[in-house]
Amino acid sequence: MFDKTPPKGMRDILPEDLLLREKISDTIKGVYRSYGFTGIETPCVEDLGLLTSKQGGDNEKLIFKILKRGEKLENSSADDLCDLGLRYDLTVPLTRYFANNCGKLPSVFKAMQTGSVWRAERPQKGRFRQFVQCDIDIINEESFLAETELILATGEALEKLGLPDFCVRVNDRRLLKALALACGFCEKDFDKVFVTLDKLDKIGADGVEKELSEAFGADGAKKLVELTESLGDENEKAALEKACSICPEAGENLVNIFGTVRACGFEKIRFDASLVRGMNYYTGTIFEISYGDYGISVGGGGRYDELLGKLIGGKVCACGFSIGFERIFNILKDKGMTVDDGQGKVVFLTEKNASPAVLSSALSAAAQKRTEGNVCLVLKKIKNFGFQLSSLKQAGYTEFFVCSEQGIKKLD
Amino acid sequence: MFDKTPPKGMRDILPEDLLLREKISDTIKGVYRSYGFTGIETPCVEDLGLLTSKQGGDNEKLIFKILKRGEKLENSSADDLCDLGLRYDLTVPLTRYFANNCGKLPSVFKAMQTGSVWRAERPQKGRFRQFVQCDIDIINEESFLAETELILATGEALEKLGLPDFCVRVNDRRLLKALALACGFCEKDFDKVFVTLDKLDKIGADGVEKELSEAFGADGAKKLVELTESLGDENEKAALEKACSICPEAGENLVNIFGTVRACGFEKIRFDASLVRGMNYYTGTIFEISYGDYGISVGGGGRYDELLGKLIGGKVCACGFSIGFERIFNILKDKGMTVDDGQGKVVFLTEKNASPAVLSSALSAAAQKRTEGNVCLVLKKIKNFGFQLSSLKQAGYTEFFVCSEQGIKKLD
Repeated sequence: MFDKTPPKGMRDILPEDLLLREKISDTIKGVYRSYGFTGIETPCVEDLGLLTSKQGGDNEKLIFKILKRGEKLENSSADDLCDLGLRYDLTVPLTRYFANNCGKLPSVFKAMQTGSVWRAERPQKGRFRQFVQCDIDIINEESFLAETELILATGEALEKLGLPDFCVRVNDRRLLKALALACGFCEKDFDKVFVTLDKLDKIGADGVEKELSEAFGADGAKKLVELTESLGDENEKAALEKACSICPEAGENLVNIFGTVRACGFEKIRFDASLVRGMNYYTGTIFEISYGDYGISVGGGGRYDELLGKLIGGKVCACGFSIGFERIFNILKDKGMTVDDGQGKVVFLTEKNASPAVLSSALSAAAQKRTEGNVCLVLKKIKNFGFQLSSLKQAGYTEFFVCSEQGIKKLD
Repeated sequence: MFDKTPPKGMRDILPEDLLLREKISDTIKGVYRSYGFTGIETPCVEDLGLLTSKQGGDNEKLIFKILKRGEKLENSSADDLCDLGLRYDLTVPLTRYFANNCGKLPSVFKAMQTGSVWRAERPQKGRFRQFVQCDIDIINEESFLAETELILATGEALEKLGLPDFCVRVNDRRLLKALALACGFCEKDFDKVFVTLDKLDKIGADGVEKELSEAFGADGAKKLVELTESLGDENEKAALEKACSICPEAGENLVNIFGTVRACGFEKIRFDASLVRGMNYYTGTIFEISYGDYGISVGGGGRYDELLGKLIGGKVCACGFSIGFERIFNILKDKGMTVDDGQGKVVFLTEKNASPAVLSSALSAAAQKRTEGNVCLVLKKIKNFGFQLSSLKQAGYTEFFVCSEQGIKKLD
């Protein structure tokens, strides 16, 4: 006898949940496809060297590593037993994919990926060690056209899913850096400074100031919190003007993005100077989607103009947006969303010891009903026929036929 | 710089291939759904104990094993470094899934799974270390109704895919065993005997007899080959009668299956007494699909009435059929099958330095065209505009608009 449960932190997906997941995925992909994104797929497994190239931030600590095999394993030292790992996101594999296949792809490549990723996190409610990400990326578009399309497409996908209460928060890494520099922080401390700043929502301005102050001194801490807060207090126009004065490059980028999406009638967007995003590879615009009463992030992304260059040399611009599929699924399930495929559902029942002749009459009748677009089950009656019928009705079956030597009779 | 290629034996899937793969998968799933199969999903990773429980035959030697993590790893001896593995098929995970969730599933459970599996095989042409399987299984139906539906559903899926030149070869493990017993082989040698018998197609009757003879003596070898061949020489009715006389249980089972599917008008089926199938867990009927000129197996399956009992105790009947997705994909790609989604494909082009106003006019026009069911790209012109246009035309785009301060103009 074995443990029946899936590995720690992983899940079995029941039929009704899978239907909903497929519907969500199809809806998102339908919208993305209409924007000209094309689907790609990479292996779930990548070389460990690629996965541990310091692009994945803390996720690199969470890699499921795969043992070498055969001779390769025999010749390995104890600290070098693994050669592969399960991917922890879809972005690092995408960059390898583009490097490997760019000759066969359009020069501006709009990629769409839906797939599982794995992270050996301490399991907790709503967090899994295998979960689905749903990414779009635009490679080789250096202007804010990329950001604009990513925001519009992702927004449209959420609307189509019946999730209108979202807001896309936008910032620019270059602005963050300029802010930190202006407040006297050293470049080597930026990562730590930003991790603290990122907690503004959770621990408030006082909390952030205290933490920064303890680590880097009171002066810079006070300045940075005040400056960030002041950008949040202003109306959007004034805040963006201020951003332009602090970091013209980033400010202008933000002005262009906000101007363009608003001109397209998209209003669910907000400038948030305290937005940080965890991944090391972002170089410019960053975004995150907050969802309504849940107050949680249901997606995020940004521009990463250097990641690809590290793989293929030169500069290759890229910008991506990832939808947190599991969170979207949870919200829609909580809302009671179900899938109705519109197909009729019919059952043909026979006695337990039905002859081949009776069974084939039932199977043929089912085949006929299928050509009319119905889902058809052929089943043998069980002892507790009442229970069987009620279970089938609960599963959505509405039409029942009993098949015997005497022919096929509809049950009322 | 990193290696741009995927790990050895694995693949990047290009957009046009992914479209075809999705179309194939959707077609198969549509047919299976109409038979009342419901989709499930299990993690790609399972406990190593489950994967190495001697059910997977040679595949157990090909498992990608995952290193333990953290403290667990520190406390492990050198021969016990792994706790998880990538699944090598979908059947073993299905049995765990059913054991874990049977309270929430219908008593006769018709499961449908499409997913990747991993095997660390020596890479060779057309064989990959990550590949997709597409399985249906019926759990808790002990009669030949299960086999019949699996054959009809799989056959219909192949027809729908435009692959009519297949034949389902059917045998029964119990008949194989009875044949071997009747020819004087010992039960402990059966596995080896069947591996040799399985080569009848490849090395011919003489080859099989020679191999058996060398291992187990000339007498039994000659008898077994003659008996198996004689079953193949007869017409179906006579062969099945002979099967009934050798092993009544298996013979009657085969007679019922053949009778029922033929009564349903399904003729692409053949009794093959030399069919063996590799997996240890089969207990009764086994099947394999051969495809036309390719002469290759594009699927297979069988009844495994004991695998589930090992997990949840008692006897739980099960029977499954797996389509070899990668082979189907290769055949259809060779045949030149492409996917036409029927959507119009439109491009809106702007100058490289287009203003936010021009970009938003292009984006808004694209949004409008999308509501009419078109796929729309918004792109900046590149220097070599002629090349850009011809690439886009090759990618299926047929309508082009140029957007500027002067408005939007259609290109002829």
